[in-house]
Amino acid sequence: MNVLIIGGVAAGTKVAAKLKRDNYHMQVTILTKGKDISYAGCGLPYYVGNVIENRKDLIVNTPESFSKLTGVEVITEVEVTKVNQNSKEVEALDLKNNETKTYTYDKLVIATGADPIKPPIDGVNLKGVYFMRTPEDAIKLRESIEAGEIKRAVVVGGGFIGLEVAENLAAQGVRVSVIDMAGQILPGFEPEIANYVENHLADHGIMTFTETKLEAILGDGKVEKVKTNRRSMKADAVILSIGIRPNTAFLADTGIQLAKNKAIVVNEYMETNIKDIYAVGDCAIVNNMLTEKEAYSPMGSSANIEGRILAHNLNGKKLSYKGVLGTAVVKLPELNIGKTGLTEDAAKAEGYDVATVVTVVDDKAHYYPGASNFIVKMIADKNTKKLLGLQLVGKGAVDKMIDIAAMAIALDATLENIKDLDLAYAPPFSTAIHPFSHTVNILLNKINGEIHSITPREYMEGKAESYKIIDASISPSIAAAPFVDLSKVHEELPQFKKDEKLLLVCTKGKRAYMLQKRLKNFGYTNTLVLEGGTTFNEISL
Amino acid sequence: MNVLIIGGVAAGTKVAAKLKRDNYHMQVTILTKGKDISYAGCGLPYYVGNVIENRKDLIVNTPESFSKLTGVEVITEVEVTKVNQNSKEVEALDLKNNETKTYTYDKLVIATGADPIKPPIDGVNLKGVYFMRTPEDAIKLRESIEAGEIKRAVVVGGGFIGLEVAENLAAQGVRVSVIDMAGQILPGFEPEIANYVENHLADHGIMTFTETKLEAILGDGKVEKVKTNRRSMKADAVILSIGIRPNTAFLADTGIQLAKNKAIVVNEYMETNIKDIYAVGDCAIVNNMLTEKEAYSPMGSSANIEGRILAHNLNGKKLSYKGVLGTAVVKLPELNIGKTGLTEDAAKAEGYDVATVVTVVDDKAHYYPGASNFIVKMIADKNTKKLLGLQLVGKGAVDKMIDIAAMAIALDATLENIKDLDLAYAPPFSTAIHPFSHTVNILLNKINGEIHSITPREYMEGKAESYKIIDASISPSIAAAPFVDLSKVHEELPQFKKDEKLLLVCTKGKRAYMLQKRLKNFGYTNTLVLEGGTTFNEISL
Repeated sequence: MNVLIIGGVAAGTKVAAKLKRDNYHMQVTILTKGKDISYAGCGLPYYVGNVIENRKDLIVNTPESFSKLTGVEVITEVEVTKVNQNSKEVEALDLKNNETKTYTYDKLVIATGADPIKPPIDGVNLKGVYFMRTPEDAIKLRESIEAGEIKRAVVVGGGFIGLEVAENLAAQGVRVSVIDMAGQILPGFEPEIANYVENHLADHGIMTFTETKLEAILGDGKVEKVKTNRRSMKADAVILSIGIRPNTAFLADTGIQLAKNKAIVVNEYMETNIKDIYAVGDCAIVNNMLTEKEAYSPMGSSANIEGRILAHNLNGKKLSYKGVLGTAVVKLPELNIGKTGLTEDAAKAEGYDVATVVTVVDDKAHYYPGASNFIVKMIADKNTKKLLGLQLVGKGAVDKMIDIAAMAIALDATLENIKDLDLAYAPPFSTAIHPFSHTVNILLNKINGEIHSITPREYMEGKAESYKIIDASISPSIAAAPFVDLSKVHEELPQFKKDEKLLLVCTKGKRAYMLQKRLKNFGYTNTLVLEGGTTFNEISL
Repeated sequence: MNVLIIGGVAAGTKVAAKLKRDNYHMQVTILTKGKDISYAGCGLPYYVGNVIENRKDLIVNTPESFSKLTGVEVITEVEVTKVNQNSKEVEALDLKNNETKTYTYDKLVIATGADPIKPPIDGVNLKGVYFMRTPEDAIKLRESIEAGEIKRAVVVGGGFIGLEVAENLAAQGVRVSVIDMAGQILPGFEPEIANYVENHLADHGIMTFTETKLEAILGDGKVEKVKTNRRSMKADAVILSIGIRPNTAFLADTGIQLAKNKAIVVNEYMETNIKDIYAVGDCAIVNNMLTEKEAYSPMGSSANIEGRILAHNLNGKKLSYKGVLGTAVVKLPELNIGKTGLTEDAAKAEGYDVATVVTVVDDKAHYYPGASNFIVKMIADKNTKKLLGLQLVGKGAVDKMIDIAAMAIALDATLENIKDLDLAYAPPFSTAIHPFSHTVNILLNKINGEIHSITPREYMEGKAESYKIIDASISPSIAAAPFVDLSKVHEELPQFKKDEKLLLVCTKGKRAYMLQKRLKNFGYTNTLVLEGGTTFNEISL
């Protein structure tokens, strides 16, 4: 059998290597437009920041070494221009000599990935405009930094890659601003978490400007200024990270079904709608495991899973891919952020009766050096108590919290199933009550009516406006709010009426919760705890 | 209702605080033998090592602050000597004045914990003999170190606490040896993993001696030497960490059912066999979720879960505790180790048809600074493919791997369910193919006959003796073994017969696996991959 694979970064090489490994007598050929294959796309921002020092670390395999190791034939610098599914041939342009060549196949795998979107604006081709997609992009940008050419940079696009680049530019001493035309950075994250991250980045010298659209890049021969709908910004460099577009234009005549974003629609076996044509990686669109709707997941992790499944299936198995959960994790300066599953809004849109909670929980024993907080938002269904999503920020191991949640969601867990788990505890790693379990317990308390609280989002929306703020911290910390010391509350409080609307606010939410319980014992019926306390909320009196 | 709680560290204070929180009008009293309550028992070794600098950090709450905060009455320095379940009274000795007092109850909670075992040997009361159970123990030991009195120490008992103390003593510049009468350190861990840890500790200057029984402690007024069945060792201090014994002697006349180790048997509601008497924490024995047999889990984490469940039930709910998985995690010098679920032997004893694999997998992107390996042993049932256990060592986040596995086991996952999960990936946190998924895939390959391998344990047992060792590393690295470069294998190898027994060995196991697949394509039928490669195994030719 002759398997032809178009594209050779993550998904393409994975399919190819595994095919040959399982069946060395199969003919497997990779056609790729670039000179490199199998490079570490996710590592590029860290090369910019000199966290990854050597460019050779970006290259997992050269075409030669990959070919030798696996037995796969690799043909570089050829661009496929046309697929003829009837004759089972592809036409390709050899970029080295501009000749057109024809390659035949029994099975065709499309793994062409996606290219960065280049907006049709003035100045986009100026010197000093960068993308972050190939090793060459990262190498050029770092050379320019090291040559002292970049003092100020504007990153356009506040997604994962944009922020990773911003972090690494800042680490190199570059003054960085991030602009995004959306109402928040970090698409797919809860707006209140994105807002927290924006404040955090500002504290670390990275300014973010949302609802700010790039209109033009100005400069005489090289970038000097960025023009937006809101203001102009001086810049020596612009990094465009406004999204990617699947490389599928060459399929126009094939009748291969594409999604709205031009990604190839595949079924659970990674088959397109055309016989003997398959797609994997960033050029394909997969399934969201929870919603069973299309989900675009252009991630190295998904690419590998898809590639492995497809190789199995081309070798005669029938494995299916259940899809993604929208999991992501990003490192920022002094803060990690992660998510999995549905956001509050997405869960509502799916028809769930949604309950959410925001908690501030210790990430390890409070007395252990380096201990910090996680700020966690957990999303579940009120009726079934099914866990639907988790998002969090923190200095520590947010990836652990995400992976625990991803496993639980994938296995269709309810909060009841997972509240008393025997998770790992020792002081350097976690707390005696695991931060995950702690959050599950509080959300269950909320659903069961044992805590009456208001979410940071509801607070921001003004839903506690008719409430009087009570400072329930361990010592007075909210100016102008009456302070109530829980440890002195052993009877009714003469200063408050039993039905008075009281918003109990402390640092993290825990002491306010304890005060609410205490007051309930004395007949107070209208108290609310502010979730996330002063750690997550900006209190306005 | 009058709830009397005997004991006030983790479980006792948890029950008490939650009871009062939910129902402030309930009378809740803690009786405790010591002066302290609610101390950070798991932090004590880190106080010894000065990782936790201040002794006040060991005390979560004083009796006074706890009492004020929660409304619980705390009576310290009283030792309960007798329980009369008919009159619903306990008798207690007031240690301050030696008077006997009587306390009544409606509900009695036993949370007396456990005391370190003090072996009946000569010299056990000498100055310089320490335990590691109360803040006082850790404070005394550190004072002695800081006074320059301890140059050499022997830790007796190679369990978690013994090893944590050893690590912290070594960090303080003390020469430490660990002795254990068992055949391995780390009870509950796979012997081959314990063996790896023993070698690792030796490399870091901590010598471990197994099958070494403490016979006497010798010295004139203070510790000078430790006498064992194998040798004598000079020492300025001996830390006894040979296990703990539940504090249940005072229950002798009650008819309360005790387990073999004298821990109190409770049902899923934390009820003893005597009406209105409950037990939680280190004095109780719970359930193993997998085996549904008794499991002693004297951990701060279990204590908190049990305490919370009991408080709910005393307040009229009927929550049940499904039990533990035997989860644990320990930090050692430059190495973390963790486990959850059943060991290979325990799984066999339960009647499972056991499959195991040992993998060496990257813990984060190989090019990211600080990247290292996990060495993982995964245990599953061949027939159902149910995940049964996971153990691992590594410099990185072993706790993450353990928590993912604990969640999967608790939710009764099969390897098939969890092989393609959308776990968190970015270079600073993980690898594109998650180390957990990677291990699941390899174990599935093994069960499905796609890899033929031998485990490190089988190798140690001599099960590859009739095989010829082939060095399948990237460059020759096993002296005297023929080297085969995978990247040059494109046809049959004239030097080997097709049915020759070949043991393929590389650094981690991966390249050997690829070579096996390649050779299979050329008709070789008798190759085996050595799991864990030279990273985990000591190769003998």
